Amino acid sequence: MKKRLFTPGPTPVPENVMLRMAAPIIHHRNPEFMEILERVHEDLKYLFRTTQPVVVMTCSGTGGMEAAISSLFRQGDKVITINGGKFGERWGELVRIYTGNCVEEKIEWGTAISPERIAELLDEHPDALGVCITHSETSTGTASDVQALCAAIRERSDALILVDGITAIGAHEFHFDDWGADICITGSQKGLMMPPGLALVAISERAQDIIHNHRHQPQYYLSLRKALKAHASNDTPFTPAVSLIIGLDEALQMLRVEGIENVWARHEALAGACRLGCQALGMNLFSDSPSYAVTAVWLPEGADWKQFNNTLKARNGITIAAGQDDFKGRIFRISHLGYYDELDMLTLMGGLERSLRMMEIPFKVGAGVSAVQRAFLGE
Amino acid sequence: MKKRLFTPGPTPVPENVMLRMAAPIIHHRNPEFMEILERVHEDLKYLFRTTQPVVVMTCSGTGGMEAAISSLFRQGDKVITINGGKFGERWGELVRIYTGNCVEEKIEWGTAISPERIAELLDEHPDALGVCITHSETSTGTASDVQALCAAIRERSDALILVDGITAIGAHEFHFDDWGADICITGSQKGLMMPPGLALVAISERAQDIIHNHRHQPQYYLSLRKALKAHASNDTPFTPAVSLIIGLDEALQMLRVEGIENVWARHEALAGACRLGCQALGMNLFSDSPSYAVTAVWLPEGADWKQFNNTLKARNGITIAAGQDDFKGRIFRISHLGYYDELDMLTLMGGLERSLRMMEIPFKVGAGVSAVQRAFLGE
Repeated sequence: MKKRLFTPGPTPVPENVMLRMAAPIIHHRNPEFMEILERVHEDLKYLFRTTQPVVVMTCSGTGGMEAAISSLFRQGDKVITINGGKFGERWGELVRIYTGNCVEEKIEWGTAISPERIAELLDEHPDALGVCITHSETSTGTASDVQALCAAIRERSDALILVDGITAIGAHEFHFDDWGADICITGSQKGLMMPPGLALVAISERAQDIIHNHRHQPQYYLSLRKALKAHASNDTPFTPAVSLIIGLDEALQMLRVEGIENVWARHEALAGACRLGCQALGMNLFSDSPSYAVTAVWLPEGADWKQFNNTLKARNGITIAAGQDDFKGRIFRISHLGYYDELDMLTLMGGLERSLRMMEIPFKVGAGVSAVQRAFLGE
Repeated sequence: MKKRLFTPGPTPVPENVMLRMAAPIIHHRNPEFMEILERVHEDLKYLFRTTQPVVVMTCSGTGGMEAAISSLFRQGDKVITINGGKFGERWGELVRIYTGNCVEEKIEWGTAISPERIAELLDEHPDALGVCITHSETSTGTASDVQALCAAIRERSDALILVDGITAIGAHEFHFDDWGADICITGSQKGLMMPPGLALVAISERAQDIIHNHRHQPQYYLSLRKALKAHASNDTPFTPAVSLIIGLDEALQMLRVEGIENVWARHEALAGACRLGCQALGMNLFSDSPSYAVTAVWLPEGADWKQFNNTLKARNGITIAAGQDDFKGRIFRISHLGYYDELDMLTLMGGLERSLRMMEIPFKVGAGVSAVQRAFLGE
């Protein structure tokens, strides 16, 4: 059975990227590799829309988040975090570990924080030194309006703005420099169409200044100071995941050829078609501010998650993601982040229909797939 | 020109491992992947000769070292480190960051610490809670007698024994349980014949007990407590480098088929032949206790490192490693760690001879390669 992956990281890896990574390994202190790393550094600036360094770290996205918190703040620093899902929650966990002074704003899962509420929080806490936000909350399929949030923060505060862009970069429009972010993190296994293993961290000029004078936290491997120092000579402070960086080079070329605006538009279109298809099958959307990377959907009335998932996977070869925490068994999540095209959305919807049929859940056969076709081709 | 890599990490990756990693990516919370991880966990126990968990972390070997230090010790804890090269020095850097109380024993580069000296250090510092040693010091090509060191430590102290096994595991005989080590770390790009990106950390029962009650250091991504908890259910706490773990599975199968005792013996034989070949070319060995993973050699009289290296690389396709720190430009290092066989040593020696010739450095043509042949085939 042919297997198809619709999970929000790992996401499918293009064959040319796979093949590039299967070439004989080279040494990381070799000029050939440093040339590749130099190109990767340039292309990452293109991707994040920045003139500032984007460092490549060998760790997961969480490692990148921890690197930011531990490299910027000291014990006692007040930092605001927004928790609207598992990954917003993670900002809070990290801040509590490294500063012990976290103002955590909990919001309902499936909703986004408003710029007005961020403004209120800053008015309540004018001494906050940082604000941590999540662009696309993977656990709930919810996107925030990062541009408006950054504007609201910058208008009233010098607090550093840390953006978890892990499932947003490459899916949602984002301008690191123009919007005034100070840190933005993504992981290789997301919009970058790569296997997991790399975190990419963009760092603003004022964040760099703080990092260069920062000696307050015990840290070593995840030090952004070390990463920045090595970046300046197109190097890495520790042995990097060489084959992954070589694959990343290939993947970034693909994104450049497509053009970042087109990549964003493709994700918006795929997400829109996915939502319309699910609704046409009688299913309800979970988020009131849906992400372009992942679509969260309530399980159909009467459907058991395990049976639904097994039917999709074992009998139709399709892997999707479960709900998390309180929503485990109640929602499911479809990813359209990275290496997907319009026909993939059709395939996915066809698989959903097949599974519903096998489970004898009533729906109008063909309603989902035709909604997807209409979304792309018009009526 | 055919390219051949003789560097101590990255080391060459076998084709079947490369191909296995080039297969379509799967999701890390998928039962198929957890089955692979379960097998990897079992095979790592075989490799480290232990019944205790060996956790897989997505980071370089340095990340694994930091995970051990930050998960075991608290500020103020006295820890002894042995610094006979760049990697022994790193233990000291990490201990100073996380405990601020490091007793660092500096020894001459190219020599190994004796069990007697370790015993003296422990007599001078009976309150030391840990001793950090390096099995094979990559920067100098020097091996320590870890079995004797462990015995000397265990005889007089309850200090935890942390072994940097990064270039030793798979090259030097090592018995985690029988020798009484508490932590041993290796990296994927060494004896495991993989690209870089994974650290593997074996953890003794008493180290596990300490880790489970450890709440003293700010840490998250590199927490061994999180890693152990996930390990128990064949899982990882954060998104792992999926394709690397799949490749590791393949590489570990190869080591099991060859048999670990045979793998050790092969490395000992390759190292021995390499040393004899270099000496037959009139070159002097750097270390008085040579590693089976990497051979460090003084540059021939009158040879310029840059010219030597360029001739090897650009004209003969062979990449070796430079000396580090004070020995940059004075010594070079040949790796025979991982996926190498007897004919590879012959090739390497042939390349050294060709380069010496091109540089017009006098030597007896054929002396190196025939020494290698004799080493394997007898007189």
